[in-house]
Order: sequence, then structure tokens, then C-alpha cells
Amino acid sequence: MEFDTVIHGGTIVTPTESWQGDLGLVGGRIAALAERLPGGARRIDATGRLVLPGGIEAHAHIAQESSSGLMSADDYYTGSVSAAFGGNSSFIPFAAQHRGQSVDAVIETYDSRAAPNSVLDYSYHLIISDPTEKVLTEELPRAFARGITSFKVFMTYDLMNLGDRGMLDILTVARRHGALTMVHAENNDMVKWMNARLAAAGLAAPKYHAISRPALAEAEAINRAIALARLVGAGLFIVHVSTPEGADLVARAQACGLPIHAETCPQYLAFTRADLDRPGMEGAKYICSPPLRDTATQAALWSHARRGTFESVSSDHAPYRFDASGKFANGAEPAYPAIANGLPGIAMRLPYLFSEGVAAGRISLQQFAALSSSNAARLFGMERKGALLPGYDADIAIWNPEETREVTLADQHDAMDYTPFEGMRLTGWPEHVLSRGETVVEAGELKAARGRGRFVARAPYRPDPNAPVEPELDPALNFGAEIRP
Amino acid sequence: MEFDTVIHGGTIVTPTESWQGDLGLVGGRIAALAERLPGGARRIDATGRLVLPGGIEAHAHIAQESSSGLMSADDYYTGSVSAAFGGNSSFIPFAAQHRGQSVDAVIETYDSRAAPNSVLDYSYHLIISDPTEKVLTEELPRAFARGITSFKVFMTYDLMNLGDRGMLDILTVARRHGALTMVHAENNDMVKWMNARLAAAGLAAPKYHAISRPALAEAEAINRAIALARLVGAGLFIVHVSTPEGADLVARAQACGLPIHAETCPQYLAFTRADLDRPGMEGAKYICSPPLRDTATQAALWSHARRGTFESVSSDHAPYRFDASGKFANGAEPAYPAIANGLPGIAMRLPYLFSEGVAAGRISLQQFAALSSSNAARLFGMERKGALLPGYDADIAIWNPEETREVTLADQHDAMDYTPFEGMRLTGWPEHVLSRGETVVEAGELKAARGRGRFVARAPYRPDPNAPVEPELDPALNFGAEIRP
Amino acid sequence: MEFDTVIHGGTIVTPTESWQGDLGLVGGRIAALAERLPGGARRIDATGRLVLPGGIEAHAHIAQESSSGLMSADDYYTGSVSAAFGGNSSFIPFAAQHRGQSVDAVIETYDSRAAPNSVLDYSYHLIISDPTEKVLTEELPRAFARGITSFKVFMTYDLMNLGDRGMLDILTVARRHGALTMVHAENNDMVKWMNARLAAAGLAAPKYHAISRPALAEAEAINRAIALARLVGAGLFIVHVSTPEGADLVARAQACGLPIHAETCPQYLAFTRADLDRPGMEGAKYICSPPLRDTATQAALWSHARRGTFESVSSDHAPYRFDASGKFANGAEPAYPAIANGLPGIAMRLPYLFSEGVAAGRISLQQFAALSSSNAARLFGMERKGALLPGYDADIAIWNPEETREVTLADQHDAMDYTPFEGMRLTGWPEHVLSRGETVVEAGELKAARGRGRFVARAPYRPDPNAPVEPELDPALNFGAEIRP
Amino acid sequence: MEFDTVIHGGTIVTPTESWQGDLGLVGGRIAALAERLPGGARRIDATGRLVLPGGIEAHAHIAQESSSGLMSADDYYTGSVSAAFGGNSSFIPFAAQHRGQSVDAVIETYDSRAAPNSVLDYSYHLIISDPTEKVLTEELPRAFARGITSFKVFMTYDLMNLGDRGMLDILTVARRHGALTMVHAENNDMVKWMNARLAAAGLAAPKYHAISRPALAEAEAINRAIALARLVGAGLFIVHVSTPEGADLVARAQACGLPIHAETCPQYLAFTRADLDRPGMEGAKYICSPPLRDTATQAALWSHARRGTFESVSSDHAPYRFDASGKFANGAEPAYPAIANGLPGIAMRLPYLFSEGVAAGRISLQQFAALSSSNAARLFGMERKGALLPGYDADIAIWNPEETREVTLADQHDAMDYTPFEGMRLTGWPEHVLSRGETVVEAGELKAARGRGRFVARAPYRPDPNAPVEPELDPALNFGAEIRP
Repeated sequence: MEFDTVIHGGTIVTPTESWQGDLGLVGGRIAALAERLPGGARRIDATGRLVLPGGIEAHAHIAQESSSGLMSADDYYTGSVSAAFGGNSSFIPFAAQHRGQSVDAVIETYDSRAAPNSVLDYSYHLIISDPTEKVLTEELPRAFARGITSFKVFMTYDLMNLGDRGMLDILTVARRHGALTMVHAENNDMVKWMNARLAAAGLAAPKYHAISRPALAEAEAINRAIALARLVGAGLFIVHVSTPEGADLVARAQACGLPIHAETCPQYLAFTRADLDRPGMEGAKYICSPPLRDTATQAALWSHARRGTFESVSSDHAPYRFDASGKFANGAEPAYPAIANGLPGIAMRLPYLFSEGVAAGRISLQQFAALSSSNAARLFGMERKGALLPGYDADIAIWNPEETREVTLADQHDAMDYTPFEGMRLTGWPEHVLSRGETVVEAGELKAARGRGRFVARAPYRPDPNAPVEPELDPALNFGAEIRP
Repeated sequence: MEFDTVIHGGTIVTPTESWQGDLGLVGGRIAALAERLPGGARRIDATGRLVLPGGIEAHAHIAQESSSGLMSADDYYTGSVSAAFGGNSSFIPFAAQHRGQSVDAVIETYDSRAAPNSVLDYSYHLIISDPTEKVLTEELPRAFARGITSFKVFMTYDLMNLGDRGMLDILTVARRHGALTMVHAENNDMVKWMNARLAAAGLAAPKYHAISRPALAEAEAINRAIALARLVGAGLFIVHVSTPEGADLVARAQACGLPIHAETCPQYLAFTRADLDRPGMEGAKYICSPPLRDTATQAALWSHARRGTFESVSSDHAPYRFDASGKFANGAEPAYPAIANGLPGIAMRLPYLFSEGVAAGRISLQQFAALSSSNAARLFGMERKGALLPGYDADIAIWNPEETREVTLADQHDAMDYTPFEGMRLTGWPEHVLSRGETVVEAGELKAARGRGRFVARAPYRPDPNAPVEPELDPALNFGAEIRP
Repeated sequence: MEFDTVIHGGTIVTPTESWQGDLGLVGGRIAALAERLPGGARRIDATGRLVLPGGIEAHAHIAQESSSGLMSADDYYTGSVSAAFGGNSSFIPFAAQHRGQSVDAVIETYDSRAAPNSVLDYSYHLIISDPTEKVLTEELPRAFARGITSFKVFMTYDLMNLGDRGMLDILTVARRHGALTMVHAENNDMVKWMNARLAAAGLAAPKYHAISRPALAEAEAINRAIALARLVGAGLFIVHVSTPEGADLVARAQACGLPIHAETCPQYLAFTRADLDRPGMEGAKYICSPPLRDTATQAALWSHARRGTFESVSSDHAPYRFDASGKFANGAEPAYPAIANGLPGIAMRLPYLFSEGVAAGRISLQQFAALSSSNAARLFGMERKGALLPGYDADIAIWNPEETREVTLADQHDAMDYTPFEGMRLTGWPEHVLSRGETVVEAGELKAARGRGRFVARAPYRPDPNAPVEPELDPALNFGAEIRP
Repeated sequence: MEFDTVIHGGTIVTPTESWQGDLGLVGGRIAALAERLPGGARRIDATGRLVLPGGIEAHAHIAQESSSGLMSADDYYTGSVSAAFGGNSSFIPFAAQHRGQSVDAVIETYDSRAAPNSVLDYSYHLIISDPTEKVLTEELPRAFARGITSFKVFMTYDLMNLGDRGMLDILTVARRHGALTMVHAENNDMVKWMNARLAAAGLAAPKYHAISRPALAEAEAINRAIALARLVGAGLFIVHVSTPEGADLVARAQACGLPIHAETCPQYLAFTRADLDRPGMEGAKYICSPPLRDTATQAALWSHARRGTFESVSSDHAPYRFDASGKFANGAEPAYPAIANGLPGIAMRLPYLFSEGVAAGRISLQQFAALSSSNAARLFGMERKGALLPGYDADIAIWNPEETREVTLADQHDAMDYTPFEGMRLTGWPEHVLSRGETVVEAGELKAARGRGRFVARAPYRPDPNAPVEPELDPALNFGAEIRP
């Protein structure tokens, strides 16, 4: 066999084993695994290095307008470049439908933003905020047919919140077509009630953002979302879980055999609400929703990452600069409700997870491979990614597990003017990232051309066929069978 | 001491003990307890009988229009008479505000319906369906000042459902003034989604009513209601719990020390959804919301009654005749969504609970006293009722625990043309009911005059001061203290 | 009616209500309750005072030899006097069978110790350490016939531990005759393994006592004891629960409807293992088993007291003086395994529970009445005690809820040379204690004669007839019915 | 690269993926994986077949005397042959120390039984029934040094039961040296108490075996075993879990991050206690301990297999013939306590798990790979087995997932005269089994020579370093750190 590239002598890490040996690549795919492979037009020496499936970033806001029209700082070029420097070889940002928009048009728009610019392979999760009859019956099926097999809905924000009925409609379509529904779960009315109380008390500093979105609001919404998915018999992916209560609900649902999935994000592991009380307006840099919590929460979330409650750790990269183009676009008034929500971190997700997870002994290398790549590939239907086996895309990240470096803004390679991780010393960094066999980043330098990334048509999501069925809807019972979605 | 009345030789039952002896009454109140009391202008022989605090019916629809304008069959005369025959000496029906109505006017209306007619003492739970600023800040405080210290809100029915924000507003007012909020907890959107599916499938027989309101819809709404009450730090009373899942949520909240209270109703213990599938339209007689469930549910609900999860068992008496004035008022079409919801049972609540509870060995006499009267008195602030101790109102029911009788419509003494309990053989019946020392019912005959009942101004509800506070709102934390309601 | 005594104008407290009025006593029993009672050969003014059922101390070591022959410092005179000063009007110490002893002889011995000396009514829990065939089939039935309807077994201490089989045999006899089995639940082998490790490390200071008996040892043993009782279908009373884990197991069993009961003790609420590390040998004063824990445990135990997991709070009064007659009787060597186990506190149980419970807002007055007296009367079959109703013994404690006093040794009136509660300021003290209508303590003075107390023959314990039955033993199944105990 | 063997065109199944391609073997190991591999001295066509890691049977009684001296019917020849026909390429039977025996001698004995006979690679779990000081400090360390890194202890059977202290001692040695302790968890005293009751009632038929060992006895013992392991901070593997209660305890411990592992066996999924009531003495064929349960248990155990509570499904092959050499060796009397315990099934474990698991849709192919091989390799330190990756032993089973066959005794290839699975129709059978690249079984014929199997020195077990530490033993606390094992 002739190989385009041989990656030689590394420790190859999968979700179940680590083994020593070589990978041979042909035509952008992994062609062979062996203890030792001869030849290779190009040989990459991975001695002393970890060879991992390239990271799959499953939660990022790139070239996306918010419902109020604010555009994220990163486009598909800077966003994909930053992701690549962070050890990723593909990503799935959002394509956001706002009210009144056609889904077809939204996808076209995002295609025009992504295709000419991305250095990594990409797909979209479709955000739905306006599930009209036409969207439900015509546009979503067309999106599925294109390989967009996941979408996201909101239980909060007045302009995004679908209400329970909207969610039931979406989940029904998802079940029928094989899509996985992602949900931002916070109780909108609780948040608005808190906002009203805080406003009445004249409390508007950034630190009150954390108060305004209590843990209870997330736990309630997660419970409700799971109930809605159970009624329909559909799978569900709960994004950015930030509370022990919420994670416990997910774990309990999983223990019942329900197809409920979840992620958390590095910011909930790394920071607390105390960061919202930094001097001056510095706290605004840490405003995101759900908000940062406390150290007890951090320990509980790590525990759920270790146990597998979280199948993925994502960045929720939401880049708004610390100026009038971003965080403060809504006016000079520094009141927390007016400050743009979101933290950047697409380049930090994996180095943080490696350093504080693997190097610090909280998770194993196997868990890192699963949380960073393999699980996302399986859940979101990227059938040729996320594993280092023959026939899979040669999406590979080579890590130096020993290197210790201090986080700087420059290393983010994004369009931002700050990183919340600034100054942290982390151990374990990606050195070389390949996408379909092509080097994207090597030794701190970008090697890939703008627009080389390809759209990935994704396979349908299939919930566990053993998932329990609501008794009332069980075909074995007297009535109800007819109405099973 | 000279007694107006001495009740002699009975077994006196309290929530903690049973003891043998006499009660001496003076001026409508209990004046003395003793092993033997001499004298008495009137002596009632209670030998071989149980002397219990008169029942307090805490959930009944009397002289009440539904949101669609349908009037219940019973007015305050037939309703109170039926309650009295069922062992009650006071009751708390609803005064219902519909959208656009003034609370002051509603109370006036119900006063005019109750005062001239009721043979029992009464109060109202105020139903709120339109919590305008004026209602919240002016009318509800006026209602409290009158001694109306509980109200009820709905999480279902389009014309009644307040939404989470409305509930938070009501709970806030309740906490401030000392009211107990009652809630009908079913997820409205789930029900509507089920209705749409059933309608699309052309399924409209009465039995589909049970399918249309799944257990999950109740469990979800109970969880949400508890979360809303926790956020506010307010007490909550969940009416007519009909599912094991819902009862478990209540029990778990209670175990955390939260001031969450609940009731179930005899119909959920006595009947199942199979009754909805009776021949012809007979199933319509068993349509109520939440709907009847199954036998496993019955066992679980009895267990929660025994454990104390339920502090009360109420009738939810909702009398709609089996004709065009009631069940079928919405038209000739016998589709389940058009059939009036509700079962009559104000006369059956206590005989059923005694026979299937005490006589069948499922609950103790002490638990019967608590579930039928004492707990309702305490929760709803009827400070002079619910106990057989000096100074309390002489509201007393004397029961023959040995009598076995078959249930007939005639014995209901209500305005209905059917009873769902028809034909059951029950053991243990009230023989003599006194209200403030006056005989209301004796030996199957009504002795009281129309309109003798009095309005009871009730004391405020006070949640457990030890109830846990949400961490975010805890004064001990850095921020948030200021916004505690 | 002519009364020997009228207690006038107090607030009378029961487990469900507080009411204002008078109690009339005749012949040592409560004859009448009324808002106002005339006459009375003697009138006790209780204005501004709480009138409570006299405390029932259900766990005390009085005139008892340990298995190693060490005699407790208090005999039935000092023990009962100290209890009376602490608001009790009866108590149930242990009659301990050691290995090789006849139960008949043990009861005779304790009768000879109690009858001439006790100022309060008393009974015994029988400790069984040698369940021979004769004990099981002849002696225990004779003890039941005398009205000794509870006994205690140990899962720890080499000379007391019955092993699982011994417990099953005892539980079987208890179920057959209607006795309640009390258990000291700590895993003996865990403790011995810890002791061996500590000894090997040369760690013998008092503070290591806490380490030697880990929380896990109690939780494991409680779980096992509950399993053994479930197998037999017998009731169980778990003494001195000292851990959240253990209390959670009890609560879970209760939620399943099992007849599992439990108590905790003031020392687990008041002190922590830090007290075992007091300077010099002072820590020895705080050595008891199970050992003192930490402040998180205290909060959890209070919560379980409030919720009702604990039906009683007892002193576990185990008086060993801080000298060679007590704590150090086993030699001069101050190694923790040689120090006598036990804390005195029979006079402090109720003042501590009142002050830190009721006055501090952790429990209600109603819960105090239940935890101090009424529940113990019911569980242990003292049918004429524990309630302030006509026909019950006039066992009454009149408390001043406002008085604040500092704890001193002198106020204990026991035979001890220290009190662990020394110097605490507590609010709420008993002023007047009556037993069968006779004043025992009044205004800090003893009024009762040595030996006036009487043995109380107790009624059988009956577990809840609704307690679930093990499926394998369920008569409804194919086999197993025949072997139900 | 030159390959000895190429397995071509199969679907290769791992615990995380299935992929299409070829495996190239060199010198008994897997040398290369590729989509297509040329050459190979021998080419095995696996088109349309599943290529799985060869099964690892982790629980089998081979050439083992029971404590009463009864020898199992299978020796290492018939046992390994039967295992190979069942899709296994290695196994780990027990080497059993009985009381008074030296561990060194036991290992020598089993070496002499295994080495000349086994056709598969093998190791032993060491059964310890006599943990003398010499065993603990000298013999077990020598066994570890040889690569025997797991052993088994019993909580039941008078001659095997170690008591809690014995278990603590073994767990301590295991923790120190890196061994995994396996435990048969049933409460011995409960079983003996049941036996005594059944004997007293004259109930001795086989069906009473199930009654004599209640579910509660297993659940209690599992809880206790977990507590003992927690105290020591050691890992634990609970064998043949047969109850939902027991599996729930394991799942809860795992959710707390404790290193608790477990297996169940096909017999608990396939049969119920009704099989013990087959006509005549047929029930004796189904006597094993813990006993068979019921259909609700089967569903719960499948659910735990799917969720991952069980990391392995093992046969617990315990072959005693249905005659006086086996089941009835203890005499002609057919009383259940005298009948030998155990079911044969080493050849049925994987076909049953595949057919009822994978083919029936209860578990995925990935879960099958994990439960049959990969997890056992990891837990028991078989570092070169259990994965199909370069460098691993070429232990491979090729399955035909479509073949349906009826189970016969002849197909078992063991020394037994019955199979409890007789007559079942199963879908999915192994066709070709390789061990270190050599064909052992192919197309229903044995190809391997007696004695070709090799002893596998196993790597130490390492519990999760993140496992929680008992607070009392936590180095961060004031005391206790010194005594951590």
C-alpha cells in the first residue's frame, strides 16, 4: 500500500484504548493502522505525542446575528482558524432562523458565509424560532434531506422562546425525520420576574446577571424539556448545562433509558459568579447565559463529565468584543440586561479540558477522546469522523501532553479583543491538526487555505429503540396506539 | 358548669389519640372535656359511636360559573345540605374571578349566593384568572383583609391558565400577605398537543379524555409549580393530585423541608380510566380533569395518603347533570372535549374515605381525623375549627363505624341526577352532624335552616420559617438579599 | 366535679394544637379539660406558662452494669431525680442481660434496684445479649406477659453483638409477641479493623475514638438492621442515629411504609468530634458510641427531627464519672479504647431540645410535645401517658418558655462530676413536674419521696398492618406462605 | 508487510464503532488494520460476518473442588473446548483455596490442571477462604507477583464466608497490591434462617431453594460489600448480580464515582424460579446461587446491562451432572439443601447474549463487544486482549449474525449430561474462533491441540484515582490521614 502520509510512533488514543503505532493516510482518509508502517510520501514523527481524533466543536456561534441583529465577531474564517488552533478539525456552528425568516433562505445565507471562508469541515445546527406550518412540513424536511439533522430551540429570550407547544411540534418533526433537538433550557418567566425585581431595586451591575438567572430556572426548564421529549418519544440534547440540579435530572433520565443527552462548557468549570464582580466593567466579559455559578457547581459538573452524563464538552463560543461593537452595542449604559451575552473560547475548549481534566487527573485520556470528538460525531451523525480507524476521514490532532504554556489573546487567533482564560497556565497542547489528511495548523502556524473546508451532510439521529414509551401511548394498551407520532 | 349540650360516652377521635368520654358544649363552642360530664340541657348518647371533628370540605364548586359560563348544578343550599349529610360541618367552595372581572365584585356575588342559603359555615378560595396590577395591589389585599387567605390558580385551560409569570406574581402577593396558593397543575400545551393529535385521528369518545391528559402533563406541571413557589419562597397547595409521579414530587419537596402541601380526591382512589369506556355515553359521567388513571395509581395514592404526603382528601365536587344542562351543555355532539368536566361527590368524600380507608385497614382513625378535618383547618386558617378541645367551635360529626349501606342517588341530597358511587356498599356512616353546637343532620334528616351558616374569616397562612431559601436569594450570600420578596 | 388539683390558665400544648385553658385532676389522672374550671383543692397558676405532657425518657442507663462490669454512676434515685428536674415524669432505662444470665433473674435484679428508689414511673427495655433457646421460648414470653414489650440488641461490642442470626431470632419472637426491637447499629468488624489500624499507628488519644467508628459503620449497620427486620416483617427502633446517611436510610424505609422508627440524641446536635480534641484528657468526657460527628451532621439531624424521621429525641444518659470509678476505670492508660463510653444528660435532654429546637425556631411546640413525650408513649405502649386528655395519667410538665439560664453541674441533680453542657445558655426551662398528679419537682426543689415511682406494664407494639411484605414471603405467591413468621 | 493471516471483508466490531475492512495478523498478534489488505499466507473470508474480539469468560468453575470436595464435571480440556465453541478465546476460571490450604500449593495444583489441558489462554481468580496472616502477607503478594491480580471472596456458605473482618483484610491487601476483589454477595445468616424455617415446615423440594435465598439477602450483602470496599478505598467486582435491588445499589455507587463493578449471568436473564418447579426433580437442574428470580427481574437486569451498570455478562459455568456424580452427590434424598449448586453454560453465554441481546434489539453490537470481551480485559488486566488493534493478541471470533439454530446438548462440547438452554432457538452464532492467530474452532470443528493455551500474567487493577475518599479518612481533615491504607 502506498500512503500519502504516515503518522509514526505516536500513542493513539481512542475512547476505549491507547495503543502505540502508526497511521497511514491515503486520499484524505485513514487507510491503515499498524504497529509500524513503512513508506509514506510524508512521514510525521509523533514519538512522545498523543494522536487523537480531531476535535469536533459542536456548539459555536459563528457569523451569526442575534435576534436583536448583533453579529458575532468571528466569521467562518477567523472562527475556523481559531478552532483549528484549539485542536479541532471540524465544527458545527448554528444557522439561525429568526422570526419571519424562511429556513431555506437561512441555509443559503450561511452557506454563503461558510463555504468561501472555512478552513475546517462544517455543518450547521438549525436554530428554529418560528415553527410555522410551512417550516414544519416543508422547510425542515428539505433541510433534513440536505443532511442538516439537528436543530436548536430556546426556552428563554422573548424573541426565541418557542413555548411548550412549539417545542412539541419541533420534537414531533424531529422524531419523524430523525433529527436531534438541542435545547437552551432556562425558564423565561423566572428570568423576567427576577429582572423586574432587580430593576425595581435599581440593581444593574454585571454581577446581578448571575442573580437574574437562578439555578432553579435551568433545573425547571431541563425537567420540562425532558418531559416534552418523553411525551413525543424523541431524543433531546441539552446544551450548556450549568447546574448540579440540571445534570442530576439528565443523569436520572439516562438511568431510565431515555435518549437524553447533554453537554457542559469549560466556562462553567473554570469560572464562577465571582468573576462577574470584577472591578469596573470587567465583569461584563463573563456575562453569558446560563450564568457562571460557584465552586461547588464546578466539582459537580466535573463529576458528571467523568460519569458520562455529559457526552460532550463544548465551547459555546459567542464572540462579542469588549467594546461598542460587541458587549456594549446596546448603548453606553452598563446595565447587565443590555450587555451582550456570551464568552469566546473556541480555541480554549480542548486545551482547558485536557489540562484541568486529563493532566489534573479528573478524567482519563479515553474520556477526553470521547468528550472532545467521538461522541459528537456519533450523536450528530458525522459518520466518517471521530474515530481513528480505516475508512474514516483523516481528521487528526497530535498533542504534546507535556507542554505547559500560558494563555494569551494572541494564541486565540480569533477576532476578539479579550479571552476570559488570559494568563492561565495549562499543560497539554495540540501541535498539529489535520483535516482530511491535510495539515491545517502545525507548530503554531496556519497551513490551510481559506475556504478549503467542506460542508458535511450528516446522517440521521436515531434514538435508542429501547427507550421507554409513555404508558398512555403504549400500543399494548387499549387506546392511544393510533396517536403515537 | 352548665352545658347546653353534652355528648356522652363516645370514642373521641383526634389526629393523635382516641379516648372515651364526654364533650360539654356551651354557646356553640366546646366548653369542657371529661371522662364523665353531668347535666346538659340536651344529652346526646354517643355510646358505641365515634365522635369526630366535623369534616371540612376544602375543594368544591358551588354556585360557580365555569369560564364558559356553565353554572354548577348545586347552589349553596343543596351543596351545603349534601355536604352536611356527608359528615361535614363547614366547607370552602371557590369564588371565581373570570377575565375582566373585579375581585371585589366577585366576592360580593358569592356572598349573595352563600349567605342566604348555606346551612354550613363557609369561606371561599378565590380563583384568580386575571391578575392585573389592580388585582395584585388593591383587590387581593382587600380580600385578605376580609379573611380570604387562599386562592387558586390554573396551569391549564386557555381561559384560566396564568402562565408562569402570572403564577410568580400571585405567589409573591401570597407570600407578602400570608395566603396559601392552590394550583391545578397540568401542562396546558401538552394537553392541547394531545387534543390536536386525537382530533386529527378522529378520536372523540369519552375514553380519549384520559389519553388527552397524560400523567406526564400533571407531573411536569407539579414540578414547575414547586419550582415557582421555591423561587418566591412561598407555600403551595397542589389540588387533586392524580398520579404517583406527582405525589412523589410532592413527597420529595416535603422531605427537603419545603412548604408544599397536597390533596387527592376519592375519585382517583375509586375509579379508573376503564370507567370512561362504559357503554354508550356513560363514560361522560366519569370525565374530570385530571382524568381517572389506573389501579396501580390507586395503590400509590393510598400509600401517599397513609404517609402524609396528602394532608387532605377533598371531593372536588363539580356537579354537572347528565343532560343538556350539564355534561352536554356544549352541544349534542358527544365529543370528549365538549363534555363538561367534573364529578359530584361532596356527600361521598368522607363515607368513601372511612369505608375504604379506615374500615379496610388502609389508614388509621387518627389519619382519618387529620385528612377529613384537622389539617384543612390548620392549612386554611380556620382557627376555631378542626379540633375537639375547649374553646373550639362545636363542629362535630358522630359516626357509626359499623353501619353498612349501599350508596344511592337519593342519599346524596344534592341537585344531581347521578352519583358515580351508585351501588357501592360502604361501611361507616355519619349519623349526627353539629355545627357550632346546633344539629344540622340527624338520623337522615335535615334539621338546619337555610342560611344559618356563617362566613368564616380565616387566619393567614404561614409557611414553615425553616423552609430552605434559594442560595441565590440567601441574605448570607454576597448579593441577592435585597430582592427577597 | 370536685378536683384534687386544677392547673389554671396555661397554654396547653399537644402534638397538633396549642390551646388556652385549665386541666382538672382527680386521683392522679386528668379528669377534665375546660376553658375555665372552678374549684380544685389545689390550684396551680400556669398563666404565661406552657403545660406539656411530662417528658418520657426512652433511653437511659441507670443502675446498669456494662458487659465489663462497670456500674453506671446513677442509681434509680439519682437517675429519676435528675430526669424529673429535666422535665420528665417517667422513664424507661435498660435491664441488661449479659451472657450466661437468666432474663428472669435480670428483671428481678432491676426491680430490686428501681422499686425502692425511683421517684418517677418506670419500665425497662430488656437488653438481650444471649438469646438461648430458653430465653427465646420461655423467658422472653414471660417478660412480655409482665408488660416489658421492648428490648434492645447490639450490632457492635464483642460481648453484646448478636450477629445477624441472633437478630433474626429476636425479631421473630418480637413479631410473634408484639415487642419493639431497639438496635444499636454500628458494624463491629469495621470498628475493630479501624481499631487495629489505629493501634498499629500508635494513635490512642481520645480524638481517635471518632475516627475508629466511622459514619459508614453506622450507615451499613442501619441498612442491615432494616433488611433483617424486613425479612421477618417486624418493627424496628434504631437508637441514637448519629449520621445523615443513617437518617436517610430510615426516612427511605419509612417512605416505603416499613415500620422503622428512630431517635437521635442531644449530644449529636450539640457537639462535634472537635470536642474530643479538647486539651489534656478533657476529650474523654465526650467519648460515646456512636461518636460525635460534625456541624453538617448537626444540621441534617435537625432536619430529620423536623420532618419526623426521628420520632423521639432521647438522652442516652450513660453516666461515668471523670475519674477512676468511671471513664478511667479500665486503668490509668488514657487510650481511647479503654475509656468508658457514654455521656450524662438526662436532665439536659428537654431543656436543650426546647432551647435549640423551639426557641431557636428549628422545631415547633407541637413537634416538641411529640418528640419529648407523645411518640414514646405510643411506640413503647405507655397507654395512659403522653397525652393531656381525660383519663390519662396526670403526668405534666409546666414550662417557662422565657427563662434563660446557664447550665451548671449542680442543676443536673445526678451523681456525676461533670456535664458536657456546662456553661451553655439555654432558654426555656421546666418549672413544675407532676407525676400522676403529684408534684415531683417545683421551683427547683424536689418534692417527691424516694420509691414513689411505679412500674408501668406496657401494651404490645403493633407494626402497621399495611407494611409491605417481602414478595418471596407473600401468601399471594405460589410458595412461601407457609413460612411467614 | 507480510501477513500470516488476513481476515478479509468483515464488519469489525469494537465497543465504539463498527467498520468494514481487513485485519492482518503476524506472529499471533494483530499487525495491521486497513480497508483492504493484500496478501496473507492464509486469507479468511469474513464477508457478511462480524469480526469481534474473542470472548473472555471471566467466571467459570473448571476442574474445581467445592468446599465439600465435589469436583466439577469439566476439566481444563472440556471446559476450554466448550468455551471456544461458545465464541471465547480466553477464560479466567477460579483457583480455590479451601480452609487450611496454602495458596502457593493451590496455584501449583491448578497449574497442573490447566497447563497440559487448556486449548485457550487462561488465568485464575484466586478464591480465598482462609486469610491467615501468612496468606495475607506472604502468599498473596507472591500470587500478585505471578500476575494473578484478582480474587474472589464469599459472604455466604459456612465454609467459605470470610466475615466482614476477613473481607476488610483482603480488600486492604488488594488495594495495596493492585488486585480486584470479586465477591459473592448473599447474607449467610438470612439464608440459614430461611433454611431453618423451611426445614421446620418440612419444605424441601427444589422450588424452595429460591425461597431460601431471598432477594433481600443479596441486596443486603451487596450494600455491605460496597460499604466495606468504601472504607478501605478499594475496588470491588460483584459477581452474578441477580436482583434489581442489587443492581440499583451498584448503579448508585457508580454514580457516586466509586470503583464498583458488576456482572450478571445469562441464567438470570433466561430463566425464572418457575423453572425450579419443573416436574419431578427436573427443577434441580436450575438450582444455583443466587437463585433464579422472575420476569420483572429479567427486564430490570437487561436494562442495567444496556446502561452499563454491568460491565460484563459471565456464565458462572458450574457443571454438575444430573446424577450421583454431580447434582445428587450428597445422597439420594432430593432435598434442595443437599443438591449441588450451579448451572452449566460456558458455551451458551455469548450465543444467548447475542440472540436475546443484539438480535432482539435489547443491546447494541457495541455493547455486546464490551460485555463479552473488552471490559473484562480491562478490568482484569489482560492488557493484550479484548481489542482489535495493532499489537493486541489476535484473539478473534467471527460471527454469523443471521444463522438461527436450536440449542442441543451435543453442541455444548462440555462434559455435562444436560443444558438448561436445551431447545431454545437462537440467532447469531460464532463460526470461527482464533486465539493468538491460531484457529481453535472453525465450522463446528475443534482445530486446536490440548494444552496449547498459555497462562496470562495479568496487570494490576487500578481503581479510579478520583474515587471519593471517606471524609473521616481524608488527609485534608484534622486526623485520620495517617491510617489511610
